[in-house]
Amino acid sequence: MRILGLDPGTLALGYGLIEDDPPRFVASGALTVSARTPIGARLLKLYQGVMEVIGRFRPQEVAVEEPFVSKNPRSALALGRAQGIAVLAAAAWGLPLYYYSPAQVKQQAAGYGNSPKAQVQEMVRLQLGLETAPQPADAADALAVALCHYYQTRQELR
Amino acid sequence: MRILGLDPGTLALGYGLIEDDPPRFVASGALTVSARTPIGARLLKLYQGVMEVIGRFRPQEVAVEEPFVSKNPRSALALGRAQGIAVLAAAAWGLPLYYYSPAQVKQQAAGYGNSPKAQVQEMVRLQLGLETAPQPADAADALAVALCHYYQTRQELR
Repeated sequence: MRILGLDPGTLALGYGLIEDDPPRFVASGALTVSARTPIGARLLKLYQGVMEVIGRFRPQEVAVEEPFVSKNPRSALALGRAQGIAVLAAAAWGLPLYYYSPAQVKQQAAGYGNSPKAQVQEMVRLQLGLETAPQPADAADALAVALCHYYQTRQELR
Repeated sequence: MRILGLDPGTLALGYGLIEDDPPRFVASGALTVSARTPIGARLLKLYQGVMEVIGRFRPQEVAVEEPFVSKNPRSALALGRAQGIAVLAAAAWGLPLYYYSPAQVKQQAAGYGNSPKAQVQEMVRLQLGLETAPQPADAADALAVALCHYYQTRQELR
């Protein structure tokens, strides 16, 4: 089973792929866009990027981080756009989608919620037996989403 | 010049096309999805619908209504997803995009802001010389967005 984790942000969309049992690292990275690029071109670039990642690595399941709904409706709107195109890409490939909250992801990855970015990176590194933490942080976050889904579904089987 | 107006909502995405000077009605309608459909399938259906509308009617410009940013971040997130896929479809066709606030649209269509839905429908009917108001309301709203863009750009030329 190959799992794609996605961490959609307005200017960077992290992706991370894991597979097998216990999980091992397949690939990770971040698709980035400039704030100066018009929103349409930005969303198109992120959408094509996710489509390409799925086409190249052919995951069987996709886990997406639900944006943290801040008190700011304007940033919620922007994050909604980014998450929408990530979800759309997975749906366009006909892949099953699973959603995890930022708290769930951080809890799975680090053992407790609200941990800083660096701790998520380090836990991802340890759980996947990597020599160095995946860079950038968005890629590590996406791997954490994939690991969250992995442990969630495996625990349900036990 | 043919203008496509889009009014993206979470369960209904209104579209309306106008052309020529003075503007005349070309087509309008609403793409709808069920709340029981998973979000991925919903976004995919709306995306494919917008892609199809553009492919069929070939507008030169697209005007999108910026969602009204309520105080509720959760609904802003959902509206962001819907608007994101509408923007993505226009960008995928390489079309120039213009954004209008709900207040701008209502002001252009009805002469003043905060007018009720029925008044927008009636003003769209009058401005386009139609016998009956376009149905459903989402279609009328989308035509109002297209008209808003039409008058905005024509006023700038004067």
